[in-house]
Amino acid sequence: MSTRIGIMGYGNLGRGVECAIKQNDDMELVAVFTRRNPSTVKILTDGVKVYSASEVQDFKDKIDVLILCGGSATDLPVQTPEYAKYFNVVDSFDTHADIPQHFEKVNKSATESDHIALISCGWDPGLFSVNRLYANCILPEGKDYTFWGKGVSQGHSDAIRRIEGVKDARQYTIPKEDALEAVRSGKNPELTTREKHLRECFVVLEPGADADRVTHEIKTMKNYFDEYDTVVHFIPEEELMEHHSGIPHGGFVIRSGATGWNKENRHIIEYKLTLDSNPEFTTSAIIAYARAIHRMYKEGQRGCKAVFDIAPSYLSPLSGEELRRTML
Amino acid sequence: MSTRIGIMGYGNLGRGVECAIKQNDDMELVAVFTRRNPSTVKILTDGVKVYSASEVQDFKDKIDVLILCGGSATDLPVQTPEYAKYFNVVDSFDTHADIPQHFEKVNKSATESDHIALISCGWDPGLFSVNRLYANCILPEGKDYTFWGKGVSQGHSDAIRRIEGVKDARQYTIPKEDALEAVRSGKNPELTTREKHLRECFVVLEPGADADRVTHEIKTMKNYFDEYDTVVHFIPEEELMEHHSGIPHGGFVIRSGATGWNKENRHIIEYKLTLDSNPEFTTSAIIAYARAIHRMYKEGQRGCKAVFDIAPSYLSPLSGEELRRTML
Repeated sequence: MSTRIGIMGYGNLGRGVECAIKQNDDMELVAVFTRRNPSTVKILTDGVKVYSASEVQDFKDKIDVLILCGGSATDLPVQTPEYAKYFNVVDSFDTHADIPQHFEKVNKSATESDHIALISCGWDPGLFSVNRLYANCILPEGKDYTFWGKGVSQGHSDAIRRIEGVKDARQYTIPKEDALEAVRSGKNPELTTREKHLRECFVVLEPGADADRVTHEIKTMKNYFDEYDTVVHFIPEEELMEHHSGIPHGGFVIRSGATGWNKENRHIIEYKLTLDSNPEFTTSAIIAYARAIHRMYKEGQRGCKAVFDIAPSYLSPLSGEELRRTML
Repeated sequence: MSTRIGIMGYGNLGRGVECAIKQNDDMELVAVFTRRNPSTVKILTDGVKVYSASEVQDFKDKIDVLILCGGSATDLPVQTPEYAKYFNVVDSFDTHADIPQHFEKVNKSATESDHIALISCGWDPGLFSVNRLYANCILPEGKDYTFWGKGVSQGHSDAIRRIEGVKDARQYTIPKEDALEAVRSGKNPELTTREKHLRECFVVLEPGADADRVTHEIKTMKNYFDEYDTVVHFIPEEELMEHHSGIPHGGFVIRSGATGWNKENRHIIEYKLTLDSNPEFTTSAIIAYARAIHRMYKEGQRGCKAVFDIAPSYLSPLSGEELRRTML
């Protein structure tokens, strides 16, 4: 039996969910919901319609899992508890500090309405979190490192665009090779923000804008750039379009730990992602987890879950027997 | 409440389990069992005794999980189904092709006796398997690669030692950097055995042995070396002791896959282990999974499990709330 999916919100994430469904035979796209005028939203899947977000409750019995593709700042804190009243839901809430309170609200809503919900799915939070957990359990005496990149930071790109005289910009977060090597050596270094990541900016200026002033404003911008080594390149708009229009990302989760009666042996566990498309990889994880929570729902599980609570076998369309034979 | 552990068999793995217990406050070593004369086996933990394997049934109510530290060739196929009659058990059965039938036998025994069992725990099978599963579910269209090393292969070292004129030997399996880079590039290459791994041998000769003949016998040995590029070094015994007495290992699980409406975006997921001590890392994983199956047993779960069936949160001594706050 297939899992019937609804998509709430059709930006990069919504489109990514749609593409991931196409790659999984047991997943079926039922409807896309938008807060825009539905007639203005064109999707890729033949025969599937776009509806107004206000119509979603009509689909209560037609959707197994509703994927919430809104943003973490203002959409999901409201949407996830709300839609968990009517649907099993998955979101990609990624404001790490607010996860505990988001979990409580979603858990209350899903439990009271007899649904299952999964929050903070994707790669960080998500697969990176799962890898931190496995590595911490296996090497209880050790140290964790997370590096991000090379990849586009949307937030930092937006911050540059708000500077006067900037027409467009793209910011890449780049892990420093020296820091990675120091961690891999097992020396458990203490690394500052500046030592871990470099910020590289590609900026298109408005005609007549002062490049020196823009550079200075970028490099000294509080919270965004002032604690980092930042490199600024000014390029023509065509070059930005041609070479910097993708949304690559990735990163590393590394744990360095010791075992042995006297902690005499060192071990390094490294998990590395190199992604051409941040939103498509995020949504590929979301669709695998949507399969999992649909199965857990059918088994009677209810309430809010984190990726930690989901056994890996639930993510796969294969049976336990097939998995043991082919992947163990 | 702590998990009371028994160790069956006290070689490298048994000793590794003992060391891992020391690193986990909620784990307690109750007894070590051996087929040797118990008085000849010295363990590290003060106040814990060594018993004959034949006495293990006296501990039915004193042990929560019995860790089976025998070999996969002849010990575990018999021991795991047998001891699952009396205990919750974990083994590290690693003959991949025989896992399905081992699972069936252990599942029958554990189910009939109302116990829980985990087979094939460690890093391969084990953590590598879990990573293959996650990566396959997230990137359903892609290709898997597993590389081993740099590390000591006990089986290949033993094979060299059986050659006439060889006093001692150590064989390292080494992944080839070219092959790794080709995989990381996303080109999904087809790689032969020879292209993936190099075999490097350090050999101590008996006095008067013919080095050329030994080299020839190693390089042409069927199943072990004939399909590989093999490098042979002859060294003095002291050098072998001084520089090659550790048991390092590790390896890589890489999945390279595509997403997007027209598969236009590439992604690489890489999981890498660099281990000073193969048995100690294996047993560090086993102890985390012993915690998990003890918890699952208390929740009422029975029968044989694989690492795929165990939600990551069960491996941790922390509560769900603590995990969400600190690792998600």
